Amino acid sequence: MTAYSQLAGFRGGDGVVRLIGHRGARGVMPENTMAGFEFTTMIGVEALEFDVVMTRDRVPVITHNHHLISSATRTPGGDWIKGAEPKVSEMSLAEVQALDVGGLDGRTTYGRRFPDQAFLNDAHVPRLSDLLGFASRPENSNLHLLLELKSDPVARNDAQEHRNVVATVVGEVRAYHLEARTVLHSFDWLLLDECRRQAPEMPTSYLSQLPENPADAGEDSSLAAGPDFNSLQKSIPQTVHESGGQMWCPHFMDVTPALVDEAHALGLLVSAWTVNETADIQAMIAAGVDGIVSDYPGRVQHCLLNHGLRWTNGAR
Amino acid sequence: MTAYSQLAGFRGGDGVVRLIGHRGARGVMPENTMAGFEFTTMIGVEALEFDVVMTRDRVPVITHNHHLISSATRTPGGDWIKGAEPKVSEMSLAEVQALDVGGLDGRTTYGRRFPDQAFLNDAHVPRLSDLLGFASRPENSNLHLLLELKSDPVARNDAQEHRNVVATVVGEVRAYHLEARTVLHSFDWLLLDECRRQAPEMPTSYLSQLPENPADAGEDSSLAAGPDFNSLQKSIPQTVHESGGQMWCPHFMDVTPALVDEAHALGLLVSAWTVNETADIQAMIAAGVDGIVSDYPGRVQHCLLNHGLRWTNGAR
Repeated sequence: MTAYSQLAGFRGGDGVVRLIGHRGARGVMPENTMAGFEFTTMIGVEALEFDVVMTRDRVPVITHNHHLISSATRTPGGDWIKGAEPKVSEMSLAEVQALDVGGLDGRTTYGRRFPDQAFLNDAHVPRLSDLLGFASRPENSNLHLLLELKSDPVARNDAQEHRNVVATVVGEVRAYHLEARTVLHSFDWLLLDECRRQAPEMPTSYLSQLPENPADAGEDSSLAAGPDFNSLQKSIPQTVHESGGQMWCPHFMDVTPALVDEAHALGLLVSAWTVNETADIQAMIAAGVDGIVSDYPGRVQHCLLNHGLRWTNGAR
Repeated sequence: MTAYSQLAGFRGGDGVVRLIGHRGARGVMPENTMAGFEFTTMIGVEALEFDVVMTRDRVPVITHNHHLISSATRTPGGDWIKGAEPKVSEMSLAEVQALDVGGLDGRTTYGRRFPDQAFLNDAHVPRLSDLLGFASRPENSNLHLLLELKSDPVARNDAQEHRNVVATVVGEVRAYHLEARTVLHSFDWLLLDECRRQAPEMPTSYLSQLPENPADAGEDSSLAAGPDFNSLQKSIPQTVHESGGQMWCPHFMDVTPALVDEAHALGLLVSAWTVNETADIQAMIAAGVDGIVSDYPGRVQHCLLNHGLRWTNGAR
């Protein structure tokens, strides 16, 4: 048993597989929006995964890509943005929040991936502090946060920038007294070193995606931020463990039962992402992962119940 | 143009096809629950379809079948109900509301139909008045109600029972001052005669399903309540019109462009149910219906937007 109380919300076993809402519930609601987080929490999901990027005026906001993508971003007048996609780190918070991210353009490659997603108007990129405030409410006291720090490849070797980003994000988590329910999560394993230095009270979660599995359409690739997997001297679980991590989050196509066993033997928790198809959800259950990160939490709930499993320690 | 202001919320044309949430949004949230109605409204849907049945103590409640189905009903302890399915009209409101209808048993035929539906605990059959109260809130002033009166085949020829049911339901709608946003809707066309007698201020909507299209698994058949379509002397739209109806709601498999045109020429509005697959949604758009009743409102939103259509008269 580890001393990190946060990990209780991510640990499987004894009939429990954790269900972690991916950017809220991207298959159902606009990703990384407060409406999506509220929906996901309302249906009984007790862990949220989301992505943090900094604005030019140094406000941590919740959005996945470094650039706001044209297939999910509209002007205040309701038109899809045109031309070069704007970079969040070059925009003020006010500029970011002037745009509407409540819907997907179903005619685009990215939009076609989520044909059931609700289309909202007037939904804006939230600040990290908006979600922290939400998680602080008494009715959300069971909610755990898997806070992904996005690392800009342009600043990859900028140690001062790493220190600043981590200081700001950790400062906000502490301001809301949510350290005990937050896990810091990244593809950028060097950034996680900095997290451990500044915030030894929060566990670190290592994202991985092997290069043979290509990035999904419409999403920034993880390859520019992550380690060179071909040059690792040891297995990924061993490397995560020796680096000081407590959680390993592999792409689901990279999961094998043997790797899950190896990770567990090292004391790591394993959550697989982004697991959306029923057959893949079943495969992750069979592989023995602790948690499943999904765009379709209702579908995961059905699969777990059909296997006699649950996603919470609650009475039922 | 008709004098019924209610119909504005169900009329298509000018780039609008109405989106009507079926029992809320059955594909996403437990059907006929307040959580489901709140979700559907939150994503911008401006019309709800739902089903009203009377308890033994004469309280109108919102549930589809006359019996609570074992694949969607749990005891207070969380077990699926066993044995004969209890009949709502033989239960008190308290007995009905003691049961949990927040989830589907995914191992049943009915449960397998909605594999993405969220699984909630402690969701109960709402009273009609719960939904009327919700619709009365200032923020829901655009919400329209397609209130289906379920007719118990056992009482089919009981005129006094018809009068009593309509009086109770109409009385509640009036108590919440929602007549101007409510349409009364039934497979039982005789019951709609009674509705017109007691509530001439509300339009009537005629449901139909031709007998060659079988009932869906897990649902009471409409055949016992509806007319004998083989004995109709005229077309269904003509019959609805001559009966005094303003809206025709055919099963989507019974819709043809010619029938929609005939209905429109008679001044009827047409909404098709329950339209869930993308190809079927597209076919209904092509047929020119006014409205689409769906378990998957997000999917309908995407289809409409992809065709340059919208589901509201709002600015966008």
